[in-house]
Amino acid sequence: MEMLTCNLDRGSNIPLYEQLYDYIKNEIMEGRIPYGTKLPSKRKLSEFLTISQNTVEQAYDQLGAEGYIEGFPRKGYFVLAHEDLEYVQPVRYENMPEQETEPIKYNFHPSRIDTENFPFEKWRKSAKNIIDKENQALLLMGDWQGERVLREEIAHYIYQARGVHCSPEAIILGAGVETLLQQLILLLGNQAAYGVEDPGYHAISRILKNYPNEVSPLEVDGKGVKVDNLEGSKLDIVYVTPSRHFPYGAVLSANRRIKLLNWAASKEKRFIIEDDYDSEFRYVGKAIPSLQSMDQNDKVIYLGTFSKSLIPSIRISYMVLPKQLIKLYKEKLSFFQCSVSRIDQHILARFMREGDFEKHLNRMRKVYRRKMDKTLELLKPYERFVEIVGDLSGFHIVLKVNNGMPEKELVERALQKSVKVYPLSSYLLESHYESQPIIILGFAGIPEPELANAIELLLKSWKIL
Amino acid sequence: MEMLTCNLDRGSNIPLYEQLYDYIKNEIMEGRIPYGTKLPSKRKLSEFLTISQNTVEQAYDQLGAEGYIEGFPRKGYFVLAHEDLEYVQPVRYENMPEQETEPIKYNFHPSRIDTENFPFEKWRKSAKNIIDKENQALLLMGDWQGERVLREEIAHYIYQARGVHCSPEAIILGAGVETLLQQLILLLGNQAAYGVEDPGYHAISRILKNYPNEVSPLEVDGKGVKVDNLEGSKLDIVYVTPSRHFPYGAVLSANRRIKLLNWAASKEKRFIIEDDYDSEFRYVGKAIPSLQSMDQNDKVIYLGTFSKSLIPSIRISYMVLPKQLIKLYKEKLSFFQCSVSRIDQHILARFMREGDFEKHLNRMRKVYRRKMDKTLELLKPYERFVEIVGDLSGFHIVLKVNNGMPEKELVERALQKSVKVYPLSSYLLESHYESQPIIILGFAGIPEPELANAIELLLKSWKIL
Repeated sequence: MEMLTCNLDRGSNIPLYEQLYDYIKNEIMEGRIPYGTKLPSKRKLSEFLTISQNTVEQAYDQLGAEGYIEGFPRKGYFVLAHEDLEYVQPVRYENMPEQETEPIKYNFHPSRIDTENFPFEKWRKSAKNIIDKENQALLLMGDWQGERVLREEIAHYIYQARGVHCSPEAIILGAGVETLLQQLILLLGNQAAYGVEDPGYHAISRILKNYPNEVSPLEVDGKGVKVDNLEGSKLDIVYVTPSRHFPYGAVLSANRRIKLLNWAASKEKRFIIEDDYDSEFRYVGKAIPSLQSMDQNDKVIYLGTFSKSLIPSIRISYMVLPKQLIKLYKEKLSFFQCSVSRIDQHILARFMREGDFEKHLNRMRKVYRRKMDKTLELLKPYERFVEIVGDLSGFHIVLKVNNGMPEKELVERALQKSVKVYPLSSYLLESHYESQPIIILGFAGIPEPELANAIELLLKSWKIL
Repeated sequence: MEMLTCNLDRGSNIPLYEQLYDYIKNEIMEGRIPYGTKLPSKRKLSEFLTISQNTVEQAYDQLGAEGYIEGFPRKGYFVLAHEDLEYVQPVRYENMPEQETEPIKYNFHPSRIDTENFPFEKWRKSAKNIIDKENQALLLMGDWQGERVLREEIAHYIYQARGVHCSPEAIILGAGVETLLQQLILLLGNQAAYGVEDPGYHAISRILKNYPNEVSPLEVDGKGVKVDNLEGSKLDIVYVTPSRHFPYGAVLSANRRIKLLNWAASKEKRFIIEDDYDSEFRYVGKAIPSLQSMDQNDKVIYLGTFSKSLIPSIRISYMVLPKQLIKLYKEKLSFFQCSVSRIDQHILARFMREGDFEKHLNRMRKVYRRKMDKTLELLKPYERFVEIVGDLSGFHIVLKVNNGMPEKELVERALQKSVKVYPLSSYLLESHYESQPIIILGFAGIPEPELANAIELLLKSWKIL
């Protein structure tokens, strides 16, 4: 090839070398400069285009780096072979609007928390303290298990609050319970057969559906999950919410706890996953002891989270692994970096160490208790239609609704009044499960002064009021 | 049972009801109060122990809640059946010390970044601005894809910087590339067969090892991954680092890019995962265009991260999914909550919107370029022994070491001088891979004034100096 006739725009803010590079690349891609063509020498092209040799060299180097041309010493630059690529318009996403949000005034989702009373000032102070040039080591990757300082605070806290026996070495932090559950599933292997509460926390069964593992539903009644048939089953892992069954509210009875622990103890590969999602918040009597605290055989995997006790959007959860599993995790999965921001871990550790977490918990227990009492008081006159079942604690109550409407209608009618409630059926694993209409009512996220209005709207939508 | 002889300690700070509850619970667990026993009535027990009826009621309620006893109207409280539980000492973890850290003075890990120049003040300002009572909505769970404001900033940025065609609807955020890869593996299903670069980013093969999917190594040479044999293979998914092969440094040639894209385009289930881990940092010429920007058939899954461009410990990464995969993700996996702290997402979005991210990138490009130039200059006199191969960009260089020592010895000798370097062999999928000793030298994390000393120590340990 004698020469390249490229129109360079010297007034443009695109550098000349880049214009030249773009031109040659296009000519090659469009097939106008065929495979094997020898390009003009740098000197000749620079003279022809009245640009510096350096500019041509930059363009050629870039083309070389990307593999369009290749330079051979004392021979020059040649166009390399390439396959044709059809030119179509780039994909557009215009027709994919984000999910529209329904106009909801009151959202009774059980995972919602009170946001009015979060100690922003203290958290900000903790953040300010941590985000500091003196802490520049925190910018690099930290411990795969999570920061030691935070694990120490957690070990202390769950021992005090939940009787959980553990030391910081047994704790692994993760960005939410879902993230930890995925690691657990990998840890326990493809062959492990799972039993999950039905109804239950639906994330676990939804997650498991994507893995090769077998999953079986376990029936739940007023004493928690039924454990009588475990021994004869093929199950290896049982996932439970013993302190307060989600969403039904039952506390797993002492008798069943012991049966469950004995079942797990009797075979090496059996384990219990205890999801202790909201047991910090019990308003009558002492906290229900964790199942892990009763376990003498190192068979309980304890899952905890700051989603309820602090805020859900911070995405900090933790698991306490039995000794043999922490060993296995180290061998098999410790290449996974900790999924929680190291800076956030230190902010939280400081917040706990300063006693701010405990103060916050104590304050919030009162806030939520008031909200629950208020909710119960507002519903009391209508108990003929809305019977409250399960343990009275945590962030939601469970209503058996007895006004003749099926669950679907209850949800839809509420929504017409801009009130969002959640049916038990959305927490069922097997669709054939028979049940009276049951609604899960998460009161925690509704501002206290608006509870009366929210419940009134709800009862009106159900034609109870 | 007539009466319960419980010694209550009125001077203790454990409430009386809790002492009574503990006593009865222990008596039941130890078998001293057998199954079926009727407990004394609340009135009688309160008189006997000279405590209030209310205290007895609290203790009975707690025992009832935990399933040790059950109350029947007009009949009284009865002990429920339970199985025996052996009492052993709780598990202790004392013998599991945390991994000891080796005494390392200079760590040349390729994932390490410069921490001296992080704009702590601006980040703190952004954090302060976001952690505010006015933003209390941010405490609740946000968008499962990640916050819209941040996705908009990212879409804009990767279009400008990497030519990636996407809109915010195609982006999913996650707590690190490893977290996103796990979601991707679930999305693409158990049946998908993977091809991964060998040598390559070892996380992908380590992760895949825990899934049922088949994984095959793909050979790499000076033009990137070899793609000639793809068509005849059973592969569905190919994982590549086209802008700069990790760790070898080769840029995938234009010809191979087109072949790869055409391979993917010719069958519905085929996709390419493009891991664009550090391509913001190219110091000579323009950035190598992303593979995604050349894709006309919606076949490239683009993975990006803030681990290099900002800080690794913040754990924010993202993927851009082809249209059909974003649709599938919504159907199949959108129940997963976003694994990144919502507050952090807003802090980062603000940081980007204010132009601070761009300024930071521009500054860091100069910092890293200086570090690389310095490293090259320091090694230049010894090029007979340490040949530098691959593209000169990013955070590490690749050394072919030619002093007669095998890789293992090179690493060990460096460590004796408190210098940590990483052998190519640790990035190999198949151990039988033959190669001359190659060392990956991440210069980015070494403070500039100490580079000379670090390299000197290294060369001395290798007996080159």
